[in-house]
Amino acid sequence: MAEPLIGRLAIVGVGLIGSAIIHAARRGRLAGTIVASDASPEVRARVAEIGFADVIAETAAEAANGADLVIVCTPIGVCGAVAAEIGPHLKPGAILSDVGSVKGAVVRDMSPHVPAHAQFVPAHPIAGTENSGPDAGFAELFDGRWTILAPGPDADPAAVAAVRALWEGMGAKVDTMTAEHHDLVFAIVSHVPHLIAYNIVGTAADLEDVTQSEVIKYSASGFRDFTRIAASDPTMWRDVFLNNRDAVLQMLARFVEDLTALQRAIRWGEGDKLFELFTRTRAIRRDIIEQGQDTAAPDFGRRSASAPGE
Amino acid sequence: MAEPLIGRLAIVGVGLIGSAIIHAARRGRLAGTIVASDASPEVRARVAEIGFADVIAETAAEAANGADLVIVCTPIGVCGAVAAEIGPHLKPGAILSDVGSVKGAVVRDMSPHVPAHAQFVPAHPIAGTENSGPDAGFAELFDGRWTILAPGPDADPAAVAAVRALWEGMGAKVDTMTAEHHDLVFAIVSHVPHLIAYNIVGTAADLEDVTQSEVIKYSASGFRDFTRIAASDPTMWRDVFLNNRDAVLQMLARFVEDLTALQRAIRWGEGDKLFELFTRTRAIRRDIIEQGQDTAAPDFGRRSASAPGE
Repeated sequence: MAEPLIGRLAIVGVGLIGSAIIHAARRGRLAGTIVASDASPEVRARVAEIGFADVIAETAAEAANGADLVIVCTPIGVCGAVAAEIGPHLKPGAILSDVGSVKGAVVRDMSPHVPAHAQFVPAHPIAGTENSGPDAGFAELFDGRWTILAPGPDADPAAVAAVRALWEGMGAKVDTMTAEHHDLVFAIVSHVPHLIAYNIVGTAADLEDVTQSEVIKYSASGFRDFTRIAASDPTMWRDVFLNNRDAVLQMLARFVEDLTALQRAIRWGEGDKLFELFTRTRAIRRDIIEQGQDTAAPDFGRRSASAPGE
Repeated sequence: MAEPLIGRLAIVGVGLIGSAIIHAARRGRLAGTIVASDASPEVRARVAEIGFADVIAETAAEAANGADLVIVCTPIGVCGAVAAEIGPHLKPGAILSDVGSVKGAVVRDMSPHVPAHAQFVPAHPIAGTENSGPDAGFAELFDGRWTILAPGPDADPAAVAAVRALWEGMGAKVDTMTAEHHDLVFAIVSHVPHLIAYNIVGTAADLEDVTQSEVIKYSASGFRDFTRIAASDPTMWRDVFLNNRDAVLQMLARFVEDLTALQRAIRWGEGDKLFELFTRTRAIRRDIIEQGQDTAAPDFGRRSASAPGE
């Protein structure tokens, strides 16, 4: 039998992404031994019940001991502390990686703790659902999706190649960019969209003249799409906004500037300006579908939900 | 055989909703004869090819002649002119209805043209997809979805009951409210969500430091959900914003006020405020799913799309 790509793979933090990596690595027979650890005893117990890790470690340090690749899958806000715990336990030649949605802050917080005899290859898989926890992951999550690697200028090419091969083995397509550019791109394609989804759901919940029950009943008219995104993990997303502050504020300023122009066009009845924008945005949807980044089925192909008991 | 609910049903404007009504009325055997008309010769030709209307009328006036119920399914911006054309042709006892996403402006523009011997029962089905045109409709579009009726205080209860029965026969659940309240509710659950979806897609398209190709490649991280909504019919949505101006501006002001507070929380690193909102919004998603207004499947249950050729 062929040698697996990674001898001993350690996953620190078994949430949506951590559990999906375990499933996907197992599907691809990419690791000889899979070690899982999580700060929560409940999560560790659940990982044992699911039975998809070969070893369950009590601590991140224990998980890192002897590992060839350690992937930190915790919320961004604790990845510096986790790296500080792991660092002294990394063996010579070990690779440390992560899956954080922000890369600049992760590099800032984790890299000081990586010993000279180990390598740090930051990564961000562009995949997910609104669900959280060790039961949320599945082997197909990364299939056909992009994973971004953001290695520093001095990273060992062999370590970068190993992380790339793992992600490709889990079904992903891999791109490389600087941490700084990553954070700008994801501020606009992910962070600001999540922020405005959370915001509109909050606004709707707080109205006096429209009841929450009306908002829920009639949500199929547009609102419900935003509620899916606004059901994403609160801890993860708090950490994203706190750690990609500058890029988020920069992109948010552009969004608000454009929104103000639209608001003015509505107030002054400038239908042509509205029509021009609404026509232009259709082309982007078409490109996304053509490039296989979304389904072409109307309404995402979702089954028309009906009321309970019907 | 039982008498159908509506003897002669005329559909004026065969787009997504008009064509879905024809399919759904046919499925439920709700009309004796279905007459369809559309201002566009191309659409009329396509309706003939599809073959789902019993009669194709050249004009709205011709469609209205002898009809028991005429449903205007055009964009809101032309419904006044269409009503002016139809009015003189409505027979005694005929009912005029519509499907517009705004009710105040429709009542303002259509009701002056309704003769005393006819009845006007405005309606708004809360259903749709991002697709447009006579091929976009399907019989199941209204199943389990709400339709709002907004009859005036003097409307004949028998006419309201007939329109209600038609929508229930097409699978919908029916609610009644005033036109004014309708427009406030839909400003927040539909119109402002569409506006901010159009806006974020426009903002992302216009950036200098992030390319459009990057926006498309990495859209699965949140952005692509917005592009579906921002692919909706430009004419329909221009007319919605021009015709529900006051309620949209009112709700938009609330949205921007809340967004400004979030922006400030990010700038000052107030993680607790972010976490509180992000937790609260999850509960609304849960209620929407419990009430059957959306699927509980992660990511709307959509198939993971992959790149062409893979």
